Amino acid sequence: MNSAICGRCSAWRPPPLEVLAAPGQSPHLARVGNDGLAELVARCPDRFVAFVASLPMDDPDAALREMERALDTLGAKGVQVYTNVLGEPLDAATFQPLFEEAARRDVGIWLHPARYDTFPDYLGEDKSLYEIWWTFGWPYETSVAMARLVFSGLFDRCPDIKIITHHMGGMIPYFEGRVGYGWDQLGTRTTDEDYSGLLRSMKQRPIDYFRRFYADTALFGALAGTRCGLDFFGVDHVVFATDIPFEPTPGLYCRETISVIERLDLPDDHKDQIYRRNAERLLNIGGA
Amino acid sequence: MNSAICGRCSAWRPPPLEVLAAPGQSPHLARVGNDGLAELVARCPDRFVAFVASLPMDDPDAALREMERALDTLGAKGVQVYTNVLGEPLDAATFQPLFEEAARRDVGIWLHPARYDTFPDYLGEDKSLYEIWWTFGWPYETSVAMARLVFSGLFDRCPDIKIITHHMGGMIPYFEGRVGYGWDQLGTRTTDEDYSGLLRSMKQRPIDYFRRFYADTALFGALAGTRCGLDFFGVDHVVFATDIPFEPTPGLYCRETISVIERLDLPDDHKDQIYRRNAERLLNIGGA
Repeated sequence: MNSAICGRCSAWRPPPLEVLAAPGQSPHLARVGNDGLAELVARCPDRFVAFVASLPMDDPDAALREMERALDTLGAKGVQVYTNVLGEPLDAATFQPLFEEAARRDVGIWLHPARYDTFPDYLGEDKSLYEIWWTFGWPYETSVAMARLVFSGLFDRCPDIKIITHHMGGMIPYFEGRVGYGWDQLGTRTTDEDYSGLLRSMKQRPIDYFRRFYADTALFGALAGTRCGLDFFGVDHVVFATDIPFEPTPGLYCRETISVIERLDLPDDHKDQIYRRNAERLLNIGGA
Repeated sequence: MNSAICGRCSAWRPPPLEVLAAPGQSPHLARVGNDGLAELVARCPDRFVAFVASLPMDDPDAALREMERALDTLGAKGVQVYTNVLGEPLDAATFQPLFEEAARRDVGIWLHPARYDTFPDYLGEDKSLYEIWWTFGWPYETSVAMARLVFSGLFDRCPDIKIITHHMGGMIPYFEGRVGYGWDQLGTRTTDEDYSGLLRSMKQRPIDYFRRFYADTALFGALAGTRCGLDFFGVDHVVFATDIPFEPTPGLYCRETISVIERLDLPDDHKDQIYRRNAERLLNIGGA
């Protein structure tokens, strides 16, 4: 992708929450957006091999219908959802038909963080300062959403579901020890809920479910972090991504992310998986 | 340290918030606690080479006095503060005399995360589920507190201040790219504050301030994460720690953390820094 597609992206600002939440508008906006993406793919096949559809998640029935329309009519190769839906978690019962249908159709679900400065970092404050909501809040959102999906039993209901997390899986790889030994002890830090039944009902250790997510390489050129994430998810669960065009100078994240992968000393076959084959598999598109 | 010192630690539960917040009690409780730690060090010098003092941070004047008492009278070798004070941030003006006095005395400040299930993970919920407040919330707290101290200008006012962060520096090393290129663009994601003056007033890139923190190795045996954290902070800013006794089986975190450091393929001199010399320097105690 090239930022010249839309020069205005580099001046992107989060829209005000009331725009995001405009009641009843989301199914229409999702259709407009997905129609536009389908058109872009049709017009620029040399640039875009496929697109994944946006969904009006504040209207779960409409989201399911739009997913079906985008996949069946527009040729979408997956869907993207956000880590919360107007402040509600993805493990809510209303969203489960959508996850289950995506799993049944074997299409990938891209999970993108969503948080604004309206989510404070301290109980005594009203908003997040210094864009902490973005720097740390987004990976936190990703991590929380992953945990909620794990503990809701999604992977036991849909063992083959494919969920692709942004920014190399949020906080999971770096805090593998907390996710591992820490959550093996789920319940020992809680007095007002009994989590022992939940822990017993899980077919694997909690951490093993987290390894079933996919992760992308959008860490903005962080070599040590990329190595850590790859170590956690494994070479068959990591896909190339850059977060273009949100860099200080055009093309920087693409160049640096490629440079990082080249410096990982991976065999060519592993690099080919990360650059291409894993994405082809997730998108169900032709290839090696 | 040995969990046999207090067998009840392994059954630790967070105290209810009203106990933590009992008005007016904190100076007394801090004195009792610090007197007890001083006594423990005096009685078991073979086990404890030093202690760092707890402070009644909800009463900043009393906290400053207790720091002075603990350092001058009890022989404390540093202080520990938490990432928030009853929901308020550490960059509040009332806490700056304490940070400045610690810097003037060249004593280390250990920064421990604090968060309970009372801090929800979604704007639409009232509490955090599945102990996410602990698994991810604690490193998030650490990261946010570090950012607030950086952007408050603490390191420009106190260039030599020594702050030791828990769990290998929270999220900073893994998200080095977001902290780096992301915060080089501070302000581009904000419409209701003008951060351009702040960014211009900083003597270094934001990320360079984050490298001035110290970090401990308490990642519960996570090899890839430890390597990533060490890469970020450097061998002279990482100190050995294990988070004993909060492991599933006694001694596990100590054994695994040592095993991780041994598997990093570091020269003996670097291992000696991590195991011993960096701590001696931070604690101002004798040694090589």
